[in-house]
Order: sequence, then C-alpha cells, then structure tokens
Amino acid sequence: MNQDAAADLERRLREIGEQRYHDKHPFHVLMRDGRLSKGQIQAWALNRYYYQSRIPIKDSTLMARLVDPELRRVWSQRVVDHDGTREGQGGIGKWLHLCERLGFSRDDVMAERGILPATRFAVDAYINFVRERSLLEAIASSLTEMFAPRIIGERVSAMLARYDFVDADMLSYFDARLTQAPRDADFALGYVKEHAKTEEQRQAVCDALIFKTDVLWAQLDALYFAYVEPALTPPGAYRPASPGRSN
Amino acid sequence: MNQDAAADLERRLREIGEQRYHDKHPFHVLMRDGRLSKGQIQAWALNRYYYQSRIPIKDSTLMARLVDPELRRVWSQRVVDHDGTREGQGGIGKWLHLCERLGFSRDDVMAERGILPATRFAVDAYINFVRERSLLEAIASSLTEMFAPRIIGERVSAMLARYDFVDADMLSYFDARLTQAPRDADFALGYVKEHAKTEEQRQAVCDALIFKTDVLWAQLDALYFAYVEPALTPPGAYRPASPGRSN
Repeated sequence: MNQDAAADLERRLREIGEQRYHDKHPFHVLMRDGRLSKGQIQAWALNRYYYQSRIPIKDSTLMARLVDPELRRVWSQRVVDHDGTREGQGGIGKWLHLCERLGFSRDDVMAERGILPATRFAVDAYINFVRERSLLEAIASSLTEMFAPRIIGERVSAMLARYDFVDADMLSYFDARLTQAPRDADFALGYVKEHAKTEEQRQAVCDALIFKTDVLWAQLDALYFAYVEPALTPPGAYRPASPGRSN
Repeated sequence: MNQDAAADLERRLREIGEQRYHDKHPFHVLMRDGRLSKGQIQAWALNRYYYQSRIPIKDSTLMARLVDPELRRVWSQRVVDHDGTREGQGGIGKWLHLCERLGFSRDDVMAERGILPATRFAVDAYINFVRERSLLEAIASSLTEMFAPRIIGERVSAMLARYDFVDADMLSYFDARLTQAPRDADFALGYVKEHAKTEEQRQAVCDALIFKTDVLWAQLDALYFAYVEPALTPPGAYRPASPGRSN
C-alpha cells in the first residue's frame, strides 16, 4: 500500500476511536466523575474479569491461525502479559487482586459467578470474530489498544482521587498496560497498514475496529442497564450488598 | 481417580507406545539402519517440517481452550520451545537449519512446496482433533512425547554413524527435545492421571494416544509409499535429485 493510503487508513482508525471508544460511554463518565457507588464499581470489576480472562484465549485463538513463527512469537507476548510468568504476576492475576481488594473471593470471581449474560455474549463474540474472520480483520480487532492509554490515564487518576475505597495497589493492573498497550497497538497498526492493500481490505480493517468498539461499548451498556438505570439486574447476576452511592 | 486406576492407565498408555509408536515403522527402521538415500532423508525432513510448523498451532489451539491461566502458562512453554524467543532459536528454526543443511532453500521449505498431501492430511487431522475433542483427549493426544527420547536417541546416533552427509550441527533440533519432551510428557501424563476419573474417560485417553500414534505412523507410511516402495511419488511432491541410495 502506498504511503498516502496507509496514512489515510490510520486517520480513519483514529477517527473511529474518537467517535466510538468506550471512554465516551456514560458508565465510564460516571466512573471518571466519581459518581459510581462501590457496588457499581464491584460489578464493573467482576464483569470485566470475564473480559480479562478471555483475552489470552482470544490471543491464543489468533496464534493458532499464524503459520509464521516470527509473527506468532511477537503475538505470544500478549498471552504472557496477561498470564504472567508465574502466579499473580500477569494481568489476570492483577485483575483478581483488584476484585479481592473490592471484597470478592478469588474463587467466586474465577468461577465466573454473577457475571451479566450480556458480558459473556459480547466477549464470546470477540473470540468468535478472531477465529472466523480473515487474519487481517482478526489483527485489526485488537486496535482499540491504540486508545487505551487515554482511558487508563483518565480512569486511574479519577479513581484514586474520587473513591475513598480505591488505592494505587488495587489499580496495579493498569501500570503495565500503559506500556504494553501502545507496544501492541504499534505492532498491529503497522501490520494492517502493510497488509491492507486494497480499499476493500482497508474498509474491513475499519469495520473490525468498529466491531471491537461495539464489544467494549456493549459491556458498559450492560453494566449501566443492570446497575445504574433502570438498574434491572438480571436473574443470577451479582447484587451488590450496598446499592446506591457509597462515597 | 485412585492410585490403582492411575497406575493402570499409565501401564495401558505405555503398552500403546510399545505397540504403535513410530519407532516401529519400517521407514524409521530403514533410517536407523543406514539404509535410506540422501534423497529419502531429504523427503523425510521436508515433510516433517510441515509437522513441526503445525505443532505450535496445535498448542495454541489447545491454549485457546484453557480458561485457567496457570494451565495455559505451563502449556505456552511448548509454543516458546518451537518458536524460540528469537529468530532461529526455537525448534522450527532448528528444523529449517536441518533442511538447509540437506540442500533445501529456507524459502522453499517455508512455502511448504512439495510436501506430500498425506502429510498435510495427517497433521491437519491432529489440529482438528485438539480443537474438537474434549480437553482431556486434546491433552492426552500429546502423550506420544512419553516415547520421544527412545526414538530420538536411536535416530541421532544412527544418523551420525551411518550417513556421511549428516553431522551433529544438523541434528541440533533433537538436543533440546531430549529434555523438553520428557518434561512435557510428565505434565500431560500427570494431568490425564488426575482428570480421567471414569473408565470411559481412561479409555478416551488411550484412544487419543492411539489416534496420535496413527498421525505419526501415517506420515511415515506416506514417505515409504512415495519414496521407498512402490516409490510412486504423487504429482506435485518433492522429487530428490538423486534417487536411490547415496551412501
């Protein structure tokens, strides 16, 4: 692809991020503004555990499609980042730590009890997308990481400032992501810019990113619906001990 | 499972290995006895590249089914062993080196040109098995590694002694496998002994190992048919420059 087309693709991807990334979602805005209760943040952490736990499954699914050892070697770092090289060191271990510090038992979280069905549906749709679509689309669907530093910076500082039950130790998951996400995003962006050679392929890359922003957005929709308004918590879903605002 | 049932399962698995592992195959016997031509060994290395290249795909497929980060972390070492942590360091890189030393260009090997269709069918069946069967069966299908040190020891010493075009540098792939295979086999054997709790499950474990011995055996059948007797090399398959014995 020529330089112009590559630059134009990157511009279109950044525009999708501007318009559709979940830092624009009302649930995130409430979190950022210190307007969520502890119960609502518990529900967020519990549901997001399901997403976190499936990311290495998604990445292993992608690796299973790669014939080139070099590409698989690069991609496998994502799995290592989430699984860690030993117990508790990876992203999943740190997310479990956040859940424990919020009052959940580790076993309950890992048993995936009380997670919203809509969380499962969205996350599982992501894994299916990566398994079934073209490799170019599968890789492009990871490009939401381009926008991760933006939401992480906003989320961490706001949570530390505005929730008395949150401290830096709880949020250690996000520290490593601030360097991992841009590294991963740079690689995936370079890949799609190099491999999307036709306009049809460039549109497929954009659509894959839109799909992924939908996956993230739908998870916050489900949290908002179940725990904010109309707060119709579905049968079987986690019910916080103390509904309403707690700080 | 009680100790007796676990010990009995291991005994049955070792018996399957005794009867069906591919060190009993006539093609391996010819190799061991120094009775293959260079062209026949080239065909073996070229075809086995396809198997080698798909092993991390098989293992990524298995990882994509694991929800437990700890189990995925253990299993991911297999992918690292084959892909390496940098270019040329892993098992695939070393197998490519063997192919290059045997006279192939690296690009031709990686392009998978001239590989026997039966090689592809057998290897792809292995990946499908790992994707579609129970996790217990998927893990059990790796248990041929229990018998790998036996064939490696025999193969390496025989090849060095009996083929003047073979030296230790070419066979460096097998050095690491002598420690990796038993480590992997111990883990998988422990897993199936712990998780096969019913006789039906123990039989499924045995059947998975039988399936895998078939996958390995079928690859040597195809080589024997195409390059030894009746030496009916299929259309599109690699044709050695110098047929017949060369040493």
